[in-house]
Amino acid sequence: MPKIVDHEERKEKLAEATWRVIRREGMERASVRTIAMEAGISAGSMRHYFSTQSELLAFSMKLVSDRVKARIRSSEFSGNPLEDIQRIIYEILPVDEERSAEMEVWLSFTAKALVDPALQSLSNEVYDELRATIAHCIDFLIDSGLARPDLNREIESERLYALVDGLAMHAVMQPGRATPDVLKSVVLHHLEALCQ
Amino acid sequence: MPKIVDHEERKEKLAEATWRVIRREGMERASVRTIAMEAGISAGSMRHYFSTQSELLAFSMKLVSDRVKARIRSSEFSGNPLEDIQRIIYEILPVDEERSAEMEVWLSFTAKALVDPALQSLSNEVYDELRATIAHCIDFLIDSGLARPDLNREIESERLYALVDGLAMHAVMQPGRATPDVLKSVVLHHLEALCQ
Repeated sequence: MPKIVDHEERKEKLAEATWRVIRREGMERASVRTIAMEAGISAGSMRHYFSTQSELLAFSMKLVSDRVKARIRSSEFSGNPLEDIQRIIYEILPVDEERSAEMEVWLSFTAKALVDPALQSLSNEVYDELRATIAHCIDFLIDSGLARPDLNREIESERLYALVDGLAMHAVMQPGRATPDVLKSVVLHHLEALCQ
Repeated sequence: MPKIVDHEERKEKLAEATWRVIRREGMERASVRTIAMEAGISAGSMRHYFSTQSELLAFSMKLVSDRVKARIRSSEFSGNPLEDIQRIIYEILPVDEERSAEMEVWLSFTAKALVDPALQSLSNEVYDELRATIAHCIDFLIDSGLARPDLNREIESERLYALVDGLAMHAVMQPGRATPDVLKSVVLHHLEALCQ
Protein backbone atom coordinates (compact mmCIF):
# COMPACT_ATOMS: atom_id res chain seq x y z
CA MET A 1 0.00 0.00 0.00
CA PRO A 2 2.51 2.64 -1.09
CA LYS A 3 -0.06 5.43 -1.11
CA ILE A 4 -0.98 5.04 2.55
CA VAL A 5 2.68 4.86 3.51
CA ASP A 6 3.35 8.05 1.57
CA HIS A 7 0.41 9.74 3.26
CA GLU A 8 1.70 8.83 6.73
CA GLU A 9 5.24 9.82 5.83
CA ARG A 10 3.98 13.15 4.61
CA LYS A 11 2.07 13.72 7.82
CA GLU A 12 5.26 13.07 9.80
CA LYS A 13 7.15 15.57 7.64
CA LEU A 14 4.45 18.14 8.40
CA ALA A 15 4.69 17.34 12.11
CA GLU A 16 8.46 17.85 11.94
CA ALA A 17 7.88 21.21 10.25
CA THR A 18 5.52 22.03 13.14
CA TRP A 19 8.27 21.18 15.65
CA ARG A 20 10.73 23.45 13.83
CA VAL A 21 8.30 26.39 13.84
CA ILE A 22 7.53 25.88 17.56
CA ARG A 23 11.21 25.63 18.50
CA ARG A 24 12.20 28.67 16.45
CA GLU A 25 9.25 31.00 16.96
CA GLY A 26 7.07 29.56 19.72
CA MET A 27 3.60 28.04 19.85
CA GLU A 28 1.97 31.41 19.05
CA ARG A 29 3.42 31.24 15.53
CA ALA A 30 2.40 27.66 14.85
CA SER A 31 -0.44 28.56 12.47
CA VAL A 32 -1.37 26.26 9.58
CA ARG A 33 -0.13 28.93 7.17
CA THR A 34 3.32 29.26 8.80
CA ILE A 35 3.75 25.51 9.08
CA ALA A 36 2.71 24.94 5.44
CA MET A 37 5.30 27.54 4.41
CA GLU A 38 7.96 25.84 6.56
CA ALA A 39 7.12 22.49 4.93
CA GLY A 40 7.15 24.02 1.45
CA ILE A 41 3.54 23.23 0.55
CA SER A 42 0.48 25.46 0.06
CA ALA A 43 -1.91 26.07 2.93
CA GLY A 44 -4.59 24.52 0.70
CA SER A 45 -2.66 21.24 0.35
CA MET A 46 -2.51 20.97 4.16
CA ARG A 47 -6.19 20.04 4.07
CA HIS A 48 -5.34 16.67 2.48
CA TYR A 49 -3.54 15.79 5.69
CA PHE A 50 -5.14 17.71 8.54
CA SER A 51 -8.53 19.39 8.57
CA THR A 52 -7.81 21.74 11.49
CA GLN A 53 -4.84 23.32 13.25
CA SER A 54 -5.86 21.45 16.39
CA GLU A 55 -5.60 18.11 14.52
CA LEU A 56 -2.15 19.04 13.20
CA LEU A 57 -0.94 20.02 16.69
CA ALA A 58 -2.33 16.84 18.26
CA PHE A 59 -0.61 14.68 15.64
CA SER A 60 2.66 16.60 16.12
CA MET A 61 2.46 16.20 19.89
CA LYS A 62 1.75 12.49 19.62
CA LEU A 63 4.70 12.02 17.27
CA VAL A 64 7.06 13.17 20.04
CA SER A 65 5.97 10.33 22.31
CA ASP A 66 5.78 7.85 19.39
CA ARG A 67 9.43 8.53 18.60
CA VAL A 68 10.47 8.00 22.22
CA LYS A 69 8.48 4.76 22.42
CA ALA A 70 9.92 3.48 19.14
CA ARG A 71 13.44 4.11 20.43
CA ILE A 72 12.73 2.29 23.68
CA ARG A 73 11.20 -0.68 21.78
CA SER A 74 14.18 -0.97 19.47
CA SER A 75 16.79 -0.62 22.23
CA GLU A 76 19.18 -3.51 22.58
CA PHE A 77 19.17 -4.65 26.16
CA SER A 78 22.15 -6.17 27.92
CA GLY A 79 20.25 -8.13 30.56
CA ASN A 80 21.99 -6.12 33.30
CA PRO A 81 19.03 -4.41 35.04
CA LEU A 82 20.89 -1.24 36.10
CA GLU A 83 22.30 -0.74 32.60
CA ASP A 84 19.03 -1.47 30.85
CA ILE A 85 17.01 0.86 33.09
CA GLN A 86 19.51 3.64 32.40
CA ARG A 87 19.21 2.93 28.67
CA ILE A 88 15.41 3.35 28.85
CA ILE A 89 15.66 6.57 30.85
CA TYR A 90 18.24 8.04 28.46
CA GLU A 91 15.76 7.56 25.62
CA ILE A 92 13.47 9.99 27.45
CA LEU A 93 16.01 12.50 28.80
CA PRO A 94 17.44 15.26 26.57
CA VAL A 95 20.97 13.85 26.48
CA ASP A 96 21.59 14.75 22.83
CA GLU A 97 20.38 17.17 20.16
CA GLU A 98 17.51 14.95 18.90
CA ARG A 99 16.13 14.34 22.40
CA SER A 100 16.56 18.01 23.40
CA ALA A 101 14.53 19.09 20.38
CA GLU A 102 11.78 16.64 21.37
CA MET A 103 11.73 17.86 24.96
CA GLU A 104 11.61 21.52 23.91
CA VAL A 105 8.54 21.01 21.75
CA TRP A 106 7.06 18.71 24.36
CA LEU A 107 7.28 21.53 26.93
CA SER A 108 5.48 23.89 24.55
CA PHE A 109 2.78 21.30 23.87
CA THR A 110 2.41 20.70 27.59
CA ALA A 111 1.83 24.41 28.28
CA LYS A 112 -0.63 24.57 25.38
CA ALA A 113 -2.44 21.45 26.68
CA LEU A 114 -3.43 23.41 29.81
CA VAL A 115 -5.88 25.42 27.70
CA ASP A 116 -6.63 22.95 24.86
CA PRO A 117 -8.88 19.99 25.83
CA ALA A 118 -7.84 17.78 22.86
CA LEU A 119 -4.14 18.19 23.66
CA GLN A 120 -4.90 17.77 27.36
CA SER A 121 -6.43 14.34 26.92
CA LEU A 122 -3.54 13.33 24.65
CA SER A 123 -0.96 14.60 27.14
CA ASN A 124 -2.72 12.65 29.88
CA GLU A 125 -2.35 9.46 27.85
CA VAL A 126 1.34 10.13 27.25
CA TYR A 127 1.99 10.93 30.91
CA ASP A 128 0.22 7.70 31.91
CA GLU A 129 2.30 5.67 29.46
CA LEU A 130 5.50 7.28 30.64
CA ARG A 131 4.61 6.61 34.24
CA ALA A 132 3.90 2.95 33.35
CA THR A 133 7.32 2.68 31.68
CA ILE A 134 9.00 4.07 34.79
CA ALA A 135 6.98 1.74 37.05
CA HIS A 136 8.18 -1.08 34.83
CA CYS A 137 11.79 -0.04 35.53
CA ILE A 138 11.12 -0.17 39.28
CA ASP A 139 9.49 -3.62 38.88
CA PHE A 140 12.54 -4.77 36.94
CA LEU A 141 14.78 -3.64 39.80
CA ILE A 142 12.58 -5.45 42.34
CA ASP A 143 12.19 -8.67 40.30
CA SER A 144 15.93 -8.87 39.62
CA GLY A 145 16.59 -8.90 43.36
CA LEU A 146 18.78 -5.78 43.15
CA ALA A 147 16.33 -3.49 44.95
CA ARG A 148 16.42 -2.85 48.67
CA PRO A 149 14.00 -5.31 50.28
CA ASP A 150 11.70 -2.61 51.68
CA LEU A 151 11.25 -0.72 48.39
CA ASN A 152 7.75 0.73 47.95
CA ARG A 153 6.80 0.22 44.30
CA GLU A 154 4.22 3.02 44.13
CA ILE A 155 6.17 5.75 45.82
CA GLU A 156 9.42 4.84 44.00
CA SER A 157 7.67 4.94 40.61
CA GLU A 158 6.29 8.38 41.42
CA ARG A 159 9.67 9.56 42.67
CA LEU A 160 11.72 8.31 39.70
CA TYR A 161 9.11 9.60 37.25
CA ALA A 162 9.19 13.10 38.80
CA LEU A 163 12.99 13.03 38.92
CA VAL A 164 13.21 12.16 35.21
CA ASP A 165 10.74 14.88 34.16
CA GLY A 166 12.39 17.48 36.40
CA LEU A 167 15.82 16.67 34.97
CA ALA A 168 14.40 16.85 31.44
CA MET A 169 12.90 20.26 32.14
CA HIS A 170 16.13 21.58 33.62
CA ALA A 171 18.19 20.30 30.68
CA VAL A 172 15.97 22.25 28.31
CA MET A 173 15.84 25.41 30.43
CA GLN A 174 19.48 25.46 31.53
CA PRO A 175 21.44 23.34 29.05
CA GLY A 176 24.75 24.87 30.17
CA ARG A 177 24.24 23.70 33.75
CA ALA A 178 22.09 20.57 33.47
CA THR A 179 24.39 18.89 30.95
CA PRO A 180 23.98 15.26 29.76
CA ASP A 181 26.76 14.26 32.19
CA VAL A 182 24.96 15.88 35.13
CA LEU A 183 21.66 14.18 34.18
CA LYS A 184 23.33 10.80 33.84
CA SER A 185 25.19 11.03 37.13
CA VAL A 186 22.00 12.00 39.00
CA VAL A 187 20.05 9.11 37.42
CA LEU A 188 22.79 6.58 38.19
CA HIS A 189 23.13 7.87 41.75
CA HIS A 190 19.35 7.60 42.23
CA LEU A 191 19.18 4.04 40.89
CA GLU A 192 22.11 2.96 43.04
CA ALA A 193 20.38 4.42 46.09
CA LEU A 194 17.38 2.16 45.36
CA CYS A 195 19.61 -0.92 45.40
CA GLN A 196 20.90 -2.76 48.40
CA MET B 1 5.35 57.91 48.93
CA PRO B 2 1.77 56.83 48.34
CA LYS B 3 1.96 57.44 44.60
CA ILE B 4 4.84 55.01 44.05
CA VAL B 5 3.12 52.40 46.18
CA ASP B 6 -0.06 52.80 44.13
CA HIS B 7 1.91 52.50 40.94
CA GLU B 8 3.54 49.23 42.09
CA GLU B 9 0.24 47.88 43.36
CA ARG B 10 -1.37 48.67 40.04
CA LYS B 11 1.41 46.86 38.18
CA GLU B 12 0.82 43.79 40.33
CA LYS B 13 -2.90 43.91 39.55
CA LEU B 14 -2.04 44.02 35.85
CA ALA B 15 0.32 41.06 36.30
CA GLU B 16 -2.46 39.14 38.02
CA ALA B 17 -4.78 39.95 35.10
CA THR B 18 -2.03 38.58 32.83
CA TRP B 19 -1.95 35.35 34.83
CA ARG B 20 -5.74 34.98 34.55
CA VAL B 21 -5.67 35.44 30.77
CA ILE B 22 -2.80 32.94 30.40
CA ARG B 23 -4.51 30.34 32.60
CA ARG B 24 -7.87 30.70 30.85
CA GLU B 25 -6.86 31.19 27.23
CA GLY B 26 -3.16 30.44 26.92
CA MET B 27 -0.07 32.50 26.18
CA GLU B 28 -1.21 33.10 22.58
CA ARG B 29 -4.05 35.29 23.86
CA ALA B 30 -1.94 37.31 26.29
CA SER B 31 -1.92 40.47 24.17
CA VAL B 32 -1.78 43.91 25.79
CA ARG B 33 -5.32 44.55 24.54
CA THR B 34 -6.79 41.36 26.06
CA ILE B 35 -4.98 41.90 29.36
CA ALA B 36 -6.10 45.54 29.57
CA MET B 37 -9.68 44.38 29.01
CA GLU B 38 -9.29 41.70 31.71
CA ALA B 39 -7.97 44.35 34.12
CA GLY B 40 -10.75 46.78 33.22
CA ILE B 41 -8.54 49.57 31.90
CA SER B 42 -7.97 50.95 28.41
CA ALA B 43 -5.11 49.67 26.27
CA GLY B 44 -3.85 53.27 26.25
CA SER B 45 -3.62 53.42 30.06
CA MET B 46 -1.44 50.32 29.99
CA ARG B 47 1.35 52.52 28.66
CA HIS B 48 1.64 54.26 32.04
CA TYR B 49 2.77 50.94 33.51
CA PHE B 50 4.43 48.92 30.73
CA SER B 51 5.76 50.22 27.44
CA THR B 52 5.75 46.83 25.66
CA GLN B 53 4.03 43.45 25.90
CA SER B 54 7.44 41.91 26.54
CA GLU B 55 7.92 44.16 29.59
CA LEU B 56 4.47 43.25 30.92
CA LEU B 57 5.17 39.52 30.47
CA ALA B 58 8.58 39.76 32.14
CA PHE B 59 7.09 41.59 35.14
CA SER B 60 4.28 39.03 35.37
CA MET B 61 6.75 36.14 35.22
CA LYS B 62 8.96 37.70 37.88
CA LEU B 63 5.96 38.24 40.16
CA VAL B 64 5.42 34.45 40.30
CA SER B 65 8.86 33.90 41.78
CA ASP B 66 8.62 37.03 43.99
CA ARG B 67 5.44 35.63 45.58
CA VAL B 68 7.10 32.26 46.25
CA LYS B 69 10.17 33.95 47.75
CA ALA B 70 8.04 36.25 49.93
CA ARG B 71 6.18 33.22 51.30
CA ILE B 72 9.42 31.39 52.07
CA ARG B 73 10.85 34.49 53.80
CA SER B 74 7.76 34.94 55.97
CA SER B 75 7.46 31.24 56.90
CA GLU B 76 7.61 30.47 60.59
CA PHE B 77 10.24 27.87 61.16
CA SER B 78 10.10 25.30 63.94
CA GLY B 79 13.83 24.59 64.20
CA ASN B 80 13.23 20.95 63.29
CA PRO B 81 15.24 20.59 60.04
CA LEU B 82 13.02 17.95 58.40
CA GLU B 83 9.87 19.95 59.13
CA ASP B 84 11.37 23.25 58.04
CA ILE B 85 12.73 21.86 54.78
CA GLN B 86 9.31 20.41 53.98
CA ARG B 87 7.76 23.80 54.74
CA ILE B 88 10.08 25.51 52.23
CA ILE B 89 9.41 22.90 49.55
CA TYR B 90 5.63 23.14 50.04
CA GLU B 91 5.86 26.87 49.30
CA ILE B 92 7.14 25.92 45.84
CA LEU B 93 4.98 22.86 45.10
CA PRO B 94 1.38 23.25 43.86
CA VAL B 95 -0.22 21.86 47.02
CA ASP B 96 -3.16 24.30 46.99
CA GLU B 97 -5.14 26.47 44.57
CA GLU B 98 -2.87 29.54 44.89
CA ARG B 99 0.33 27.56 44.27
CA SER B 100 -1.26 25.57 41.42
CA ALA B 101 -2.23 28.80 39.68
CA GLU B 102 1.36 30.03 40.03
CA MET B 103 2.80 26.80 38.65
CA GLU B 104 0.40 26.78 35.69
CA VAL B 105 1.41 30.25 34.58
CA TRP B 106 5.04 29.45 35.36
CA LEU B 107 4.90 26.52 32.94
CA SER B 108 3.50 28.77 30.22
CA PHE B 109 6.19 31.40 30.87
CA THR B 110 8.84 28.69 30.78
CA ALA B 111 7.71 27.46 27.36
CA LYS B 112 7.57 31.07 26.11
CA ALA B 113 11.06 31.73 27.51
CA LEU B 114 12.47 29.17 25.05
CA VAL B 115 11.84 31.63 22.21
CA ASP B 116 11.96 34.99 24.08
CA PRO B 117 15.47 36.11 25.14
CA ALA B 118 14.24 38.58 27.82
CA LEU B 119 12.11 35.91 29.51
CA GLN B 120 14.92 33.39 29.07
CA SER B 121 17.41 35.45 31.05
CA LEU B 122 14.77 36.06 33.73
CA SER B 123 13.88 32.38 33.91
CA ASN B 124 17.58 31.55 34.24
CA GLU B 125 17.81 33.86 37.26
CA VAL B 126 14.76 32.27 38.87
CA TYR B 127 16.01 28.73 38.22
CA ASP B 128 19.38 29.67 39.76
CA GLU B 129 17.68 31.14 42.84
CA LEU B 130 15.46 28.10 43.23
CA ARG B 131 18.44 25.81 42.93
CA ALA B 132 20.26 27.83 45.59
CA THR B 133 17.24 27.52 47.91
CA ILE B 134 17.22 23.76 47.43
CA ALA B 135 21.00 23.55 47.97
CA HIS B 136 20.41 25.47 51.18
CA CYS B 137 17.94 22.78 52.31
CA ILE B 138 20.57 20.09 51.67
CA ASP B 139 23.16 22.15 53.62
CA PHE B 140 20.69 22.47 56.48
CA LEU B 141 20.29 18.69 56.55
CA ILE B 142 24.06 18.20 56.54
CA ASP B 143 24.81 20.91 59.15
CA SER B 144 22.14 19.59 61.49
CA GLY B 145 23.84 16.20 61.53
CA LEU B 146 20.72 14.44 60.24
CA ALA B 147 22.13 13.63 56.81
CA ARG B 148 23.86 10.38 55.96
CA PRO B 149 27.60 10.93 56.45
CA ASP B 150 28.47 10.25 52.79
CA LEU B 151 25.93 12.72 51.32
CA ASN B 152 27.20 14.48 48.20
CA ARG B 153 26.01 18.10 48.41
CA GLU B 154 26.14 18.85 44.68
CA ILE B 155 24.42 15.74 43.42
CA GLU B 156 21.77 15.79 46.15
CA SER B 157 20.94 19.44 45.41
CA GLU B 158 20.51 18.60 41.74
CA ARG B 159 18.42 15.53 42.58
CA LEU B 160 16.08 17.25 45.05
CA TYR B 161 15.70 20.24 42.75
CA ALA B 162 14.74 18.03 39.78
CA LEU B 163 12.39 16.01 41.98
CA VAL B 164 10.59 19.15 43.17
CA ASP B 165 10.19 20.57 39.66
CA GLY B 166 9.07 17.21 38.24
CA LEU B 167 6.46 16.82 40.99
CA ALA B 168 5.28 20.41 40.38
CA MET B 169 4.89 19.72 36.67
CA HIS B 170 2.97 16.50 37.28
CA ALA B 171 0.64 18.18 39.78
CA VAL B 172 -0.29 20.75 37.15
CA MET B 173 -0.62 18.27 34.27
CA GLN B 174 -2.37 15.47 36.20
CA PRO B 175 -3.95 17.04 39.28
CA GLY B 176 -6.22 14.04 39.80
CA ARG B 177 -3.26 11.69 40.13
CA ALA B 178 -0.43 13.83 41.49
CA THR B 179 -2.48 15.15 44.42
CA PRO B 180 -1.03 17.27 47.28
CA ASP B 181 -0.93 14.10 49.44
CA VAL B 182 1.08 12.21 46.81
CA LEU B 183 3.53 15.12 46.41
CA LYS B 184 4.00 15.42 50.17
CA SER B 185 4.55 11.72 50.70
CA VAL B 186 7.17 11.57 47.91
CA VAL B 187 9.01 14.60 49.34
CA LEU B 188 8.98 13.22 52.88
CA HIS B 189 10.13 9.80 51.67
CA HIS B 190 12.96 11.42 49.71
CA LEU B 191 14.14 13.54 52.65
CA GLU B 192 14.04 10.55 54.99
CA ALA B 193 16.13 8.56 52.52
CA LEU B 194 18.79 11.29 52.73
CA CYS B 195 18.97 10.92 56.53
CA GLN B 196 20.79 8.26 58.49
